[in-house]
Amino acid sequence: MEPIEAVLEANGRYYGAFEAGDLDGMSSVWEHSERATCTHPGWVTLRGWASVAASYFALLQQGQPLQFLLTQVRPAATGDVGWVSLDENLLGPADGGVTIAALNVFVRHPEGWKMVCHHGSAVAAVLEPGP
Amino acid sequence: MEPIEAVLEANGRYYGAFEAGDLDGMSSVWEHSERATCTHPGWVTLRGWASVAASYFALLQQGQPLQFLLTQVRPAATGDVGWVSLDENLLGPADGGVTIAALNVFVRHPEGWKMVCHHGSAVAAVLEPGP
Repeated sequence: MEPIEAVLEANGRYYGAFEAGDLDGMSSVWEHSERATCTHPGWVTLRGWASVAASYFALLQQGQPLQFLLTQVRPAATGDVGWVSLDENLLGPADGGVTIAALNVFVRHPEGWKMVCHHGSAVAAVLEPGP
Repeated sequence: MEPIEAVLEANGRYYGAFEAGDLDGMSSVWEHSERATCTHPGWVTLRGWASVAASYFALLQQGQPLQFLLTQVRPAATGDVGWVSLDENLLGPADGGVTIAALNVFVRHPEGWKMVCHHGSAVAAVLEPGP
């Protein structure tokens, strides 16, 4: 499989595990390392797999299933690292119309591509300049 | 120079150019490609160097200098790709106390490491679960 395809496939497994509330699937998506980082929208960045895993445990256990409509999906790869820039359009009952801008970074391991960074942020309705 | 050091150096040039309002410096930090992406806090993701460059032109021209106190700086690298997870603490007169969670991705080119993705998001005072 070409790197770009493999990165897209790994990216798809991330959202599939999220939608299915599949903790084991989510765990297998991620690189279990100290350098793993995850920034959920509005959160401080969680650093290290233990903290990242705990956040998904909480999120996936909260009961309300999320559905993602992914748009503007732009994969890229250089060597053993790939990344996907995309928009997550959340289709949950309480979240109609919410768009999250996301960047997902993956690293190739012998057993496949693993997510090492996820950064999501809500897109504000009114845009203001900021750093 | 070790990759981690080189990535940190490139990361430092990004914030140095921002603080100095140095458009040429900012331009030289970035990979000028279609895959370049930039998500300023609350913004939609800008994709492609032309859009990214236009945003920095607007931000750096707006006159109010920004100062960044960088904390939780965590660099990593695999092969020709490196990334830095960090907190940007903004010290401008109107921005006291604002913390931006950021992820910066760099790719090694013959002429040095170039930023290919920047994603920043404001850390909310009250954290709520989100994807």
